[in-house]
Amino acid sequence: MKLLRSIFTARRFATNSGLRSLERNFKITRLNHVSVATNAVDKQRTFWSDVMGLQVSSETPQPDHGVTTVFVSLDNTKLELLEPMERSPISAFLKQNKDGGMHHLCLEVDNIRAAMEHVQKCGVRCLNSEPEIGAHGKPVVFLHPKDCGGVLIELEEA
Amino acid sequence: MKLLRSIFTARRFATNSGLRSLERNFKITRLNHVSVATNAVDKQRTFWSDVMGLQVSSETPQPDHGVTTVFVSLDNTKLELLEPMERSPISAFLKQNKDGGMHHLCLEVDNIRAAMEHVQKCGVRCLNSEPEIGAHGKPVVFLHPKDCGGVLIELEEA
Repeated sequence: MKLLRSIFTARRFATNSGLRSLERNFKITRLNHVSVATNAVDKQRTFWSDVMGLQVSSETPQPDHGVTTVFVSLDNTKLELLEPMERSPISAFLKQNKDGGMHHLCLEVDNIRAAMEHVQKCGVRCLNSEPEIGAHGKPVVFLHPKDCGGVLIELEEA
Repeated sequence: MKLLRSIFTARRFATNSGLRSLERNFKITRLNHVSVATNAVDKQRTFWSDVMGLQVSSETPQPDHGVTTVFVSLDNTKLELLEPMERSPISAFLKQNKDGGMHHLCLEVDNIRAAMEHVQKCGVRCLNSEPEIGAHGKPVVFLHPKDCGGVLIELEEA
């Protein structure tokens, strides 16, 4: 309900382009990656390289983030294959989705603090109160999927 | 098991770059879109425009495909918001995912028939036996998510 109220407020702002431009001091630009969770990153790496014919990175353990990652290159963006190590929140997702599946979208933003302030004003919850340093060494924040149409969104300052 | 056996076969091919290049007469190029299913495309459209600040299309009913679509523009790709009409397979997804969520990835391919032949040789099931004309007027095929790490993949000939 909080989100709906905020969206209605935003809709009123939308009738006034001046106010609307004042409201948002950030811009979302590119899709950095689509993340795919898996229990078997080695098999998924082989699927994307040998079946689909795409360029894939080597498997990279990232113990600070509790995951092993592989990147799949597309001409305009990439997929991030994620296998959880112990105690990763991705394990809970894989309990619900035993075959694996799409886990989150990472969108690039030019000003992460301005974006956090704005989305929170609109009633969207941020899963961390301050930007954290993500797996690519850049500030990131995750937005609550229940406030974003069921999509877990990572914003990354690029 | 069929897929795993095929992947092991493909792995043996991978040791011989000549065979490997003979095997694949297609190339996957760009991510055309990420599709997001929703029960309320109007609210999702408002979320992506007014909260996230992105350019969105108008709502377009596509009765032939059983959905209403909205496209969200990013600098390098787009999101496709989908609300099912009656008797759409997307309704089943939304029964399992009441908040909505990511539904499929659409990848562009230069030769859809060659891609279908190759992935089927690798044990990946195609959900239609022949390419069909998709919502963008181009030939498309969907690959079975159980053979693709839980990801529903649409290939579109671009």
